Amino acid sequence: MPKISVKGSKMPASPIRKLVPYAEQAKKRGIRVIHLNIGQPDIKTPKIALDAVKNANIEVLAYSMTEGSEAYRQKISGYYRKNGIEVAADDIIVTTGGSEALSFAMGSIMDNGDDIIIPEPFYANYNGFATAMGVSVVPIVSKIEENFALPPISEFEKLISSRTKAILICNPGNPTGYLYSKEEIAQLAQLARKHDLFIMADEVYREFTYDGREHYSILQEPDLEDHAIMIDSVSKRYSMCGARIGCLVSKNKEVIKTAMKFAQARLSPPTLAQIASEAALDTPQSYFDEVIEEYATRRNVLVKELQKIAGVKVAVPQGAFYCIAELPIDSADDFAQWLLENFEMNGETVMVAPAAGFYATEGLGHNQIRIAYVLEKDSLVRAVTILGEALQAYKKVR
Amino acid sequence: MPKISVKGSKMPASPIRKLVPYAEQAKKRGIRVIHLNIGQPDIKTPKIALDAVKNANIEVLAYSMTEGSEAYRQKISGYYRKNGIEVAADDIIVTTGGSEALSFAMGSIMDNGDDIIIPEPFYANYNGFATAMGVSVVPIVSKIEENFALPPISEFEKLISSRTKAILICNPGNPTGYLYSKEEIAQLAQLARKHDLFIMADEVYREFTYDGREHYSILQEPDLEDHAIMIDSVSKRYSMCGARIGCLVSKNKEVIKTAMKFAQARLSPPTLAQIASEAALDTPQSYFDEVIEEYATRRNVLVKELQKIAGVKVAVPQGAFYCIAELPIDSADDFAQWLLENFEMNGETVMVAPAAGFYATEGLGHNQIRIAYVLEKDSLVRAVTILGEALQAYKKVR
Repeated sequence: MPKISVKGSKMPASPIRKLVPYAEQAKKRGIRVIHLNIGQPDIKTPKIALDAVKNANIEVLAYSMTEGSEAYRQKISGYYRKNGIEVAADDIIVTTGGSEALSFAMGSIMDNGDDIIIPEPFYANYNGFATAMGVSVVPIVSKIEENFALPPISEFEKLISSRTKAILICNPGNPTGYLYSKEEIAQLAQLARKHDLFIMADEVYREFTYDGREHYSILQEPDLEDHAIMIDSVSKRYSMCGARIGCLVSKNKEVIKTAMKFAQARLSPPTLAQIASEAALDTPQSYFDEVIEEYATRRNVLVKELQKIAGVKVAVPQGAFYCIAELPIDSADDFAQWLLENFEMNGETVMVAPAAGFYATEGLGHNQIRIAYVLEKDSLVRAVTILGEALQAYKKVR
Repeated sequence: MPKISVKGSKMPASPIRKLVPYAEQAKKRGIRVIHLNIGQPDIKTPKIALDAVKNANIEVLAYSMTEGSEAYRQKISGYYRKNGIEVAADDIIVTTGGSEALSFAMGSIMDNGDDIIIPEPFYANYNGFATAMGVSVVPIVSKIEENFALPPISEFEKLISSRTKAILICNPGNPTGYLYSKEEIAQLAQLARKHDLFIMADEVYREFTYDGREHYSILQEPDLEDHAIMIDSVSKRYSMCGARIGCLVSKNKEVIKTAMKFAQARLSPPTLAQIASEAALDTPQSYFDEVIEEYATRRNVLVKELQKIAGVKVAVPQGAFYCIAELPIDSADDFAQWLLENFEMNGETVMVAPAAGFYATEGLGHNQIRIAYVLEKDSLVRAVTILGEALQAYKKVR
């Protein structure tokens, strides 16, 4: 029998997925599972985007351009300009989700055996793309006590070697909710220039910032044109995760030229979803105002309710729609499974994402969970109440 | 300035793409360019598929399941059963085009430095996926004189080493149009069993067979469950290349489990296109009957017209909608460019794909071109007339 690859055996399984069978069993027992574990927003997709697909007059559903249609890239460029980011249509490659942009970027700048430094906890799938590309993730710890701020630059410097090709940040962060300040970006930029590194910034949550804070893009940082690669996606911005449209943006022409070769191999991004995504750019500002207000309210409720539970530590998110909470337990893995297998309150339980899967360093995050606040307020309050009761009950049995 | 990756610099550029600027210049000079170079069919997408998207009642365009929706995979399984291929829904992972299925398959079974044997000429993007995965393509020559039949098994055995993990075939072939016989598949299967190799079969042109020939799938071959990985796509079958929906099919559970980890990293295939693809499975047989008849006619016309030109050698395609022709010239690269830069007949010229880009062996295919017969009959006749006249004129100047 032929063997699968070493790489394939090393590919990390989704840290959330292993709980799915327990959630299914709970549902079979008639228990309603409140999902705090996934980043699938309940917000409606802008009608303008869905209508564009309905009204498209298509006879042959043909390939689009490899780099995305000219019209769409021009409109994306306009969107960035409105956000203070000056990039041309030619600096943009439309991809199949931010996921593909991450793959193209890693492939374009890193070889088998190279290192990429990523502050942890980080979006777990960075591990998957790195493994697929033969790249090693070198984690650098950011701390819940510091709200997951950028670790000191001196700590980065300790990790940089001849294998180090890039630093990857998620801003604002999934799973941390941390929003990097202009000063932190400037520090990273200085480090990148000094060591000739790329800075990849996953900015898919750009719009989701709270308390009047403003997002500062890696592409707004001066004198970083050759180093900066931005990853973007329509998934969260317009609540259209299923579109699978994102983009890779860089003013480094070599990076674009190289990523284009990866893009050519897969022919083109999905045509129907590009139609929806192009139309989505005409979504009125009022849509975002409402959505951001809704998320801010959810965040406030979530944090307030979590802080009521004795022994729970919360990093207050400044952006995105995730929150890391530290629980007074030893193993969030065990607790999360127990919640689905052994607990219910008025016929309901909650599913959370154990945070260890968001750390690359063994042993970190074992008492933390990630909560996605993509549910409406009442469900969140109920979910946190269940969590509090469950922690009491769990303490008695474990 | 940070450097791009070695892998990125090795990524092959599309062999067709380099001619695009010349085609654009020709168009600017007012010349109509007949495209024989691309595999984008002019056949209409089944209305049932497009209507399904128009009529879908979507409020939140959400992620689908990573492996594709259960309903869609059940229906795909039924489609295969009708085609004599017994696979369950769980043997199928829905992917973003056949392209992604190829990437997942290569990543799941091959590591950096491993070899994959591919009969050449082959679909040029296999090179891209192999390079991205750090895998070496080991070509084995199939000959125009033999209609691009499977090379002798003894020739394969000469190439097999400890690095060899798989053999990849395209059946029916792009760019050759060759349809492997049941006997040839059995020979390959025997070889795979003997050397513990995977056989990857790209069967995206399954329906496109002519002269009453029947397609025999790698998954129909007995006792090959652990070795066979099939790549499929809706792109050509339903003339919906822009959907970007394909699938990876294998009865080897380890392969599926491993490919699923690659799939999880990118979350899910596009949702809108899955709706279209699921509906497309209800396309009536009459659609295919008409399409195949149309392609058969086109093929007949193309081959007949090409054979009228002195010095032109043609491999008669038995499937797909490509044809390799050998021309009485030294460099098809030069000729193809010259056609766009220096030739016109009644205001028209043709764009062809030089075939060297479909060979991995340096120096092969330099006098061959690939013709995609995805245009209606009259255009094909005119295109071949232009080709004949151009060859005459070209001989005088080169």
